[in-house]
Amino acid sequence: MLPSFAVSIAYSDGVAIAFLISFAVMILVAFPMVKFIKPIGTHMYIRDGMAVAGLGWVLISLFGCLPLVFGKICGLADAFFEIASGYTTTGATVITDIDGLPQSIVFLRSATHWIGGMGVLVLTTAVLPGMNGQNTSLAKAESSGPSFSKLLPKVGDNSKILYIIYSVMTLTLIVLLRVCGMNWFDSFIHAMSTAGTGGFSNRGLSIGYYNNVAVDIVTSVFMLLFGVSFTVYFRILARDFKQAFKNQELIVYFSLSAVTVTVIAFNIRPLYDNNLGQGFRYSFFQVSSIISTTGFSSADFDLWPNLSKIILFLLMIIGSCAGSTAGGLKVIRVVLLMKLTAREIGKAFSPRKVKVIKMDGKSVPEDMLNHISVFFFVYMLIAAVGVLTLAISGYDITESISGSVACLSNIGPAFGRFGPSGNFAALPSASKVIMALIMLAGRLELYPLLVLVFPSAWRKN
Amino acid sequence: MLPSFAVSIAYSDGVAIAFLISFAVMILVAFPMVKFIKPIGTHMYIRDGMAVAGLGWVLISLFGCLPLVFGKICGLADAFFEIASGYTTTGATVITDIDGLPQSIVFLRSATHWIGGMGVLVLTTAVLPGMNGQNTSLAKAESSGPSFSKLLPKVGDNSKILYIIYSVMTLTLIVLLRVCGMNWFDSFIHAMSTAGTGGFSNRGLSIGYYNNVAVDIVTSVFMLLFGVSFTVYFRILARDFKQAFKNQELIVYFSLSAVTVTVIAFNIRPLYDNNLGQGFRYSFFQVSSIISTTGFSSADFDLWPNLSKIILFLLMIIGSCAGSTAGGLKVIRVVLLMKLTAREIGKAFSPRKVKVIKMDGKSVPEDMLNHISVFFFVYMLIAAVGVLTLAISGYDITESISGSVACLSNIGPAFGRFGPSGNFAALPSASKVIMALIMLAGRLELYPLLVLVFPSAWRKN
Repeated sequence: MLPSFAVSIAYSDGVAIAFLISFAVMILVAFPMVKFIKPIGTHMYIRDGMAVAGLGWVLISLFGCLPLVFGKICGLADAFFEIASGYTTTGATVITDIDGLPQSIVFLRSATHWIGGMGVLVLTTAVLPGMNGQNTSLAKAESSGPSFSKLLPKVGDNSKILYIIYSVMTLTLIVLLRVCGMNWFDSFIHAMSTAGTGGFSNRGLSIGYYNNVAVDIVTSVFMLLFGVSFTVYFRILARDFKQAFKNQELIVYFSLSAVTVTVIAFNIRPLYDNNLGQGFRYSFFQVSSIISTTGFSSADFDLWPNLSKIILFLLMIIGSCAGSTAGGLKVIRVVLLMKLTAREIGKAFSPRKVKVIKMDGKSVPEDMLNHISVFFFVYMLIAAVGVLTLAISGYDITESISGSVACLSNIGPAFGRFGPSGNFAALPSASKVIMALIMLAGRLELYPLLVLVFPSAWRKN
Repeated sequence: MLPSFAVSIAYSDGVAIAFLISFAVMILVAFPMVKFIKPIGTHMYIRDGMAVAGLGWVLISLFGCLPLVFGKICGLADAFFEIASGYTTTGATVITDIDGLPQSIVFLRSATHWIGGMGVLVLTTAVLPGMNGQNTSLAKAESSGPSFSKLLPKVGDNSKILYIIYSVMTLTLIVLLRVCGMNWFDSFIHAMSTAGTGGFSNRGLSIGYYNNVAVDIVTSVFMLLFGVSFTVYFRILARDFKQAFKNQELIVYFSLSAVTVTVIAFNIRPLYDNNLGQGFRYSFFQVSSIISTTGFSSADFDLWPNLSKIILFLLMIIGSCAGSTAGGLKVIRVVLLMKLTAREIGKAFSPRKVKVIKMDGKSVPEDMLNHISVFFFVYMLIAAVGVLTLAISGYDITESISGSVACLSNIGPAFGRFGPSGNFAALPSASKVIMALIMLAGRLELYPLLVLVFPSAWRKN
């Protein structure tokens, strides 16, 4: 919140006092907790890591939304939705007049994307030196997607190097957007939102506002890049190109993007005077935005033909690579589920031989495979809860299904009234809270939030 | 086809000749096959059972549709869709003038439901005495849902007792419908369609045509009953009531029906002059029709509020009990997936202990659990193929998603242009063939059709 407070002072946007009140509230709550509650031990078990991640993210969304409440931008339920949407890098909004927001609030929204993308707890372990080494459970609870390799032995070192890569890429994008013609402030906002694969903009028309080919292309490329696992960039830096590109997930991710961009470009061509170049421009932007789960828009894809919309919808479910800032099921899970399917069919031919499933040359443990196939069901189960919530709130089938997936996969915009030109403002408050929790479940890969409903998570042993 | 041929003669409906030509074609194709192709061995491996089931069902749909082609009812693609829809007990139709169909064709459509519901190959093993004992692979490939118990040691005996229960229930329904005021012919048609949980009617308005409370209630009850595993009836006959009702799937199935009927009754009450009784009447019918995957309608549920529609949509995916004539994922799979989810969350608390999952007091093998969670993904994967097919054919998101699920779960009607007042007639021929194959995949529980695309299924060893 401090940088946002500084923005508020610099622009005299009138909400500085809201930040000061928020600081006061947080200090008042935190002081007695630090003073009187002492941790029993320092070792964290898996359930602790999950509970800390789950509860931690609910709390940062709750306290993080105070400036919106005190700044009279919106009520508590709306503010909680908005900031949970920020930290989870969803980018779904309940604010109808985006262009009229104070600069500091706009900055805060995008800053939550930037921090949430790489992980709040990862940031903590990178910044606080005392927390080194003992936090694998914590880092694991917050990481996105299954991973096979650890880059560095110490969690803290790992977090630091990730944040350095992340910051350099973000700064590069800020400069590029400025060069393309955006002003510095807007460049900052959109670069932070792109890096976190969030999607909050300070323009109601999102990136479409600039109507600038260069901005479109730069943003499209960077959205796609932030959907790539950061271990790939780490390995490129370490000049370990062989390991970096011996990566089946990466290949599928880029192939899937290429194929869907092409199909949609041809499908939407008639809408752009049969100009295939324009078709590719808008198709590339929207595919990149959806597969990376960012949620920016340069065109109202809700008006596109059914085939294009369904392809975007399926990409919403799949999402990006594990170990990126993006959401969704993750490409690696879909690839492994495909391999499991092939193995299951293969059992008809040789029922007694259990084939080991390999990924990038390494065999995948059966444990992880079981976990992934159950994960897929739990994903759909939570999606169904969202669908019912939205249907009760009066939305139609397309809106309910796509809106629920857009929240759970941390995309943002969906179809119909949740489309690029719509928002989530009309939802009842209770539904907003449920959808915010669904975003959090999506960002934390379901389980850290689910363990919180079990009483055992709250017991001492 | 023989009973349908008899109907054609009895009613002089003008298509008797079409049946005769069909018989001639089948004899011409079958004769050289029986004469010149000799089986290499008599033992069937799993892959053989699957391939026979998969290919067998495609072929009976193909040859079974000849009377529609020769009777000039529709073209080959349409006829294949219609009869595949019949045997798979889907009940989706491409025929726009149902009320104008010849009696024999109406009878044929419902007869395919009746035969397909219990299983074509089960019928074969019940009727042909020489096939006793060696066909567990075959019976398994055609059975609906995972099962834990075999009723009788011999496959043939098993098939016989199932067909006896099935026939007695069907005859009871015929008499009841006649008593409620339907004529004999219509009673026959609707009883066969209900027994197979199919949904073909000889009326364009389906059961709604009769506008008869008694018919509605009798049909609702029987649709629900045909969605119950036949082992339950077998055990009731054997006076083994304890085993019959110690059945978690059954309890969940009836509870789910009761809860959804109640919610929808209140939700649709405003449409029926706030008459809660009418609300329950229509809600019970439609829930029963959808959860049992029958697909009859007594009201156009496409005009119902969003919440009711979404509940019906979710029921379409779940379906009925394993070992019934119905489709869908099956309640038992959903229950086991829920238990898997709870176990997966429990791992956060005690990561080293792998809890055994139990069902009706028996522990479920890990193999079966893995199979079921992969099954769920494969189901969604095939649904996605259907969704893309319908989207390419020009249908919107709601229609594509619900239409695909309605075919895969063997329901029939869905929403929008696929709603109770619509049909699948406007689909391009290629899409009709794909959707027919998706119905077949759904009826055979995915794998028997999937193995056919593997070259190994066609090799001698």
